[in-house]
Amino acid sequence: MKPLIECVPNFSEGRRLDIVEKIVSAVRGVPGIALLDYSSDPDHNRSVLTFVGAPGAVEEAAFRAVETSAGLIDMTRHEGVHPCIGAADVVPFVPIRDVTMGECVAAARRLARRIGEDLNIPAYLYEEAAIRLERANLAHLRKGGYARLKADIATDPERAPDFGPAVLGPAGAAAVGARKKLIAYNVFLDTDDVEIARKIAESIRHSSGGLPYVKALGLMVNGQAQVSMNLVDYTQTPVHRVQEAVREQAGHFGCQITHAELIGMIPEQALIDAACWYLQLGGFNEEQILERRIRQAESTGLI
Amino acid sequence: MKPLIECVPNFSEGRRLDIVEKIVSAVRGVPGIALLDYSSDPDHNRSVLTFVGAPGAVEEAAFRAVETSAGLIDMTRHEGVHPCIGAADVVPFVPIRDVTMGECVAAARRLARRIGEDLNIPAYLYEEAAIRLERANLAHLRKGGYARLKADIATDPERAPDFGPAVLGPAGAAAVGARKKLIAYNVFLDTDDVEIARKIAESIRHSSGGLPYVKALGLMVNGQAQVSMNLVDYTQTPVHRVQEAVREQAGHFGCQITHAELIGMIPEQALIDAACWYLQLGGFNEEQILERRIRQAESTGLI
Repeated sequence: MKPLIECVPNFSEGRRLDIVEKIVSAVRGVPGIALLDYSSDPDHNRSVLTFVGAPGAVEEAAFRAVETSAGLIDMTRHEGVHPCIGAADVVPFVPIRDVTMGECVAAARRLARRIGEDLNIPAYLYEEAAIRLERANLAHLRKGGYARLKADIATDPERAPDFGPAVLGPAGAAAVGARKKLIAYNVFLDTDDVEIARKIAESIRHSSGGLPYVKALGLMVNGQAQVSMNLVDYTQTPVHRVQEAVREQAGHFGCQITHAELIGMIPEQALIDAACWYLQLGGFNEEQILERRIRQAESTGLI
Repeated sequence: MKPLIECVPNFSEGRRLDIVEKIVSAVRGVPGIALLDYSSDPDHNRSVLTFVGAPGAVEEAAFRAVETSAGLIDMTRHEGVHPCIGAADVVPFVPIRDVTMGECVAAARRLARRIGEDLNIPAYLYEEAAIRLERANLAHLRKGGYARLKADIATDPERAPDFGPAVLGPAGAAAVGARKKLIAYNVFLDTDDVEIARKIAESIRHSSGGLPYVKALGLMVNGQAQVSMNLVDYTQTPVHRVQEAVREQAGHFGCQITHAELIGMIPEQALIDAACWYLQLGGFNEEQILERRIRQAESTGLI
């Protein structure tokens, strides 16, 4: 199988869709890239692209997207509720198939250097690609957003970029990283009391003593309390465990789950794992999945 | 995509594995066939093969398997707990991809004719391929097994074969049919009281007022009560609905489900559907499954 990397860059523009389309075109212009998804959120004033391809192609497409966004998005005029430090705010590489995390880390570091040296934009390495340990946490890196970073970048050695100048221009800075596949997933409760969602989020998320590999916030969405989560390693803390933990917590507050939603992509395996757990299929073997066996047979040319 | 049919023939030999291997070899000898699975049960004295391929190849492989088994299995000496009427006892065709049920029915009828005319073996058409309505039900067709059919075939017009002679030789008769994908699935209870499993099976199965497209039996397996089921249309009655119905019934008897098991293959979609239901993903869109999108991109040559 051909090696595949995924890139899920976030850009600080979710209202002027002509700009988003130009970034999308820059990605699509690279041969060997499949753009799987892109969406823009006007409240957050932010857009997310998801594309996959061979490692070299993905690295090149990410660079062109960063370059395009830097020329079109002016962070000094940016408004939006989401914390952000740059036009190309975060650029994570994700190993999908026949690629190691180390290769994604190397790709992130090469891209960060290129952003710093060729585009003259400060670049920070985060998560698995971080060189400075405290930068593994993206929230730490983005704290205070563009304005705070602009004020501190030249004077605070803690905020010096890994690559590029210690000066923040209109394109801001870019956080470039490598991470595992992530599941963004929200659970809605039958209450309009956002405090309940906040308390559940607090008991669920790892940072306040909850489940490993879970980030959670309590939000209010269209009049309904929502526990909004990122599962950063579903192979360790699976979706079904999180769902049932939220359900149990909700019960303590006399609430129930009305429904849940996935934002963006989910790895097929996470759904298979959930089905097997709920259906109590202890001895399940993935060789039993008809379509997988058919695909194997097809890939070997048997049929 | 190339059209694909599945064939899941059952043979009345599960002990002499050299014979089973010869049947397997006959199938494998046909170009364009992928044998996905085969297994033998010595108690039932029965073997099941699962293979897929283009319609013509599958039809030919099924014929060769029937021919081979007829020369090696002597039904006059057959012992085993499973009801059966022939060496190649049942031969169902299943539409998998870009094939209609009508094409599987046509394949079944051509194969039945060939079994009757070329092998001189009585052949009956069942399920979707049935010409006589009462033969849609395989249980009806096999009632009394080989001995009863041998006694009645020449004299009882109700039992006259659809193709071939009204005489039963050592190879017996073959039931050839077409059906949808089937899920064979067993749920184990925390009791050694088989009566509870039988009562649950009775309330679950369609034939006694239960869920449509569900066949169920209560059995005792290694000292544990088991509800053994065939789901004959999981798109209408999904696995998770059956699992939760069994759980509810078990609760009435003060029992719980300890685990469940799948026998043979399961369509991927049945697992995805179960995951979405349990995770309450009402607005889920299959375009969100990462690997599917990647496969689509690969099939169009984009990456």
